[in-house]
Amino acid sequence: MHDTRNEQWIFMRRPIGEVTRDCFEVRTVPVPRPAAGQVLVRNIYLMVPASMRLWMDKRPSYFPPQAIGEVMMGGTLGVVEQSQDPAWPVGTLVNAFGGWQTYCVLPVEQLLPLDPHPNIELAAYRSVLDVQGVTAWAGVIDICKLQAGETLVVTAAAGSVGSLACQIARNQGARVIGIAGGADKCAWLRETCGIEHTIDYKRDDVGTRLDALAPNGIDCIFENVGGVVFDAALARINKNARIALCGLVAGYNGGPPAAYDHLMQLVYKTATLRGFLVLDYLAQWPQIVSQLQNWVLDGRLRYQLDYHDGLSAAVTAMQKLSRGENRGMGIVRISPEPPRGK
Amino acid sequence: MHDTRNEQWIFMRRPIGEVTRDCFEVRTVPVPRPAAGQVLVRNIYLMVPASMRLWMDKRPSYFPPQAIGEVMMGGTLGVVEQSQDPAWPVGTLVNAFGGWQTYCVLPVEQLLPLDPHPNIELAAYRSVLDVQGVTAWAGVIDICKLQAGETLVVTAAAGSVGSLACQIARNQGARVIGIAGGADKCAWLRETCGIEHTIDYKRDDVGTRLDALAPNGIDCIFENVGGVVFDAALARINKNARIALCGLVAGYNGGPPAAYDHLMQLVYKTATLRGFLVLDYLAQWPQIVSQLQNWVLDGRLRYQLDYHDGLSAAVTAMQKLSRGENRGMGIVRISPEPPRGK
Repeated sequence: MHDTRNEQWIFMRRPIGEVTRDCFEVRTVPVPRPAAGQVLVRNIYLMVPASMRLWMDKRPSYFPPQAIGEVMMGGTLGVVEQSQDPAWPVGTLVNAFGGWQTYCVLPVEQLLPLDPHPNIELAAYRSVLDVQGVTAWAGVIDICKLQAGETLVVTAAAGSVGSLACQIARNQGARVIGIAGGADKCAWLRETCGIEHTIDYKRDDVGTRLDALAPNGIDCIFENVGGVVFDAALARINKNARIALCGLVAGYNGGPPAAYDHLMQLVYKTATLRGFLVLDYLAQWPQIVSQLQNWVLDGRLRYQLDYHDGLSAAVTAMQKLSRGENRGMGIVRISPEPPRGK
Repeated sequence: MHDTRNEQWIFMRRPIGEVTRDCFEVRTVPVPRPAAGQVLVRNIYLMVPASMRLWMDKRPSYFPPQAIGEVMMGGTLGVVEQSQDPAWPVGTLVNAFGGWQTYCVLPVEQLLPLDPHPNIELAAYRSVLDVQGVTAWAGVIDICKLQAGETLVVTAAAGSVGSLACQIARNQGARVIGIAGGADKCAWLRETCGIEHTIDYKRDDVGTRLDALAPNGIDCIFENVGGVVFDAALARINKNARIALCGLVAGYNGGPPAAYDHLMQLVYKTATLRGFLVLDYLAQWPQIVSQLQNWVLDGRLRYQLDYHDGLSAAVTAMQKLSRGENRGMGIVRISPEPPRGK
């Protein structure tokens, strides 16, 4: 495939609450041409993580705020279609920050080459074997320093990061309690991911269930959500507990700030709450992904991708995510994959 | 002085909100006699820290909840009046957990001997040169690992712990911003304690003042209060900030839990929030106190004691503290000091 037109989604206004279609305008422009040291990349997949909503706010996140009037930013997997650098030939599969558009021109310094295993679907390299997997690894292994036999609680446990955190912890020999919203999500965690203990926060009393499932208290929390569920876990931490703060998705669409009744437990239990960013793990990235890929191949790391077709579905993917209606990592198909097994 | 009657304050009901006189009943009983390995201690001073309110709740703190119908617990400084252990002769000054009563019998394992410097008032050894000083040291030096040139924010900065944390940080060469409630508290911090930058949260806009006083952001927070002032500091932390969570006094009298709008800053700045307890520093206690005593003697560590007379004033001391009306560490005089310079 090579088109002469580039479809771009332009960020026009900051959302209030959930993102909506009218935050964007679609523009069709000619496909750009790479200069020396650049390549033209055709975007195949756009990843839609929960944090994407944060980039749209005026308040800076770990990125500067998305600029109004510019192509919406986003992590992509693509293929080189024109190259002005012999080290990056046409046909090379790359991860990049290509944005919500069909084509992008990028300097080669901003590309990450991919070498996908033939038995693993391509989009896994922009999810479980990329940011989501490394994030889960960093939180469990580096931030929590989880030991075999310890008890870890994971919130948003059926999410694209949480489900991996659960399984990495289980692979470490820990007792894992996954908290998710909905019976089907909990069933998927138990039956597909092999996570024995789950709590459906929409139906169960979280505190009562935590008391039953963690009779010796909680050593670590992998926190994705914030609010009352996090507070219920905080109420049950052990001495010297470690809490990896990955995100607080409950607040990503705005609304009143979350209140915490059990923050003093951090003092009583001399616990540590550490925020972390996956970008700080670039140096270890290849080794971590290699470990994760081995687990994917031998079935010890299961994942789900929630495919959507066309850039216009990116908004839908974000809405599904913010409502907890997604099943697995949101992946937008922008254009077809090249033939595999090259 | 040696009386035959022991005045005891018995904890009869848990307070709702601020502690009140009717939470206690006064009982007069005969002075007990020590058995082998025990001593009779006459309590001279009772310390009244903010955390005492926490011990009264049904919800466990770092101590088990104060039992109903028992003598109210509390840290005391006293003198041995009868001894059944030759290593602890009559007249020995000791720190102990003697409770709200005139006399107590304790096993010698629960005593800490004192060797007060003649130029320092005795009650300082149950405040600045005891729990409050070691707590301040632990938070600034061990938890924050504060470096010269870094910016530290202290809340409840005119309090018995906060004012010491400010000065220890200043002695380390850090830029210190003290946040306190009231112009007189801020003036005391500046003029007596030598803390250059203060914010009066009752009058100033904390965020605006922090922007002005910490133009390069905040590297560390020594947090005593919680709520909106803490949140304003969180909003301005730097990459890899360290936050020593000493207490959350804003919630000690109950009421709705505090809400946090800037907790995501922990993620964005990969910051660490660590709860800590002074009890974990027993091994280093003598060395820390020795350093603090040197600073007290050379004027680099200033403190205030807020003396009250008689056990019935302990409730008043707690109420003043919870209203922010105290000036310095609350100390209740239970009985007279022995002559100094022995």
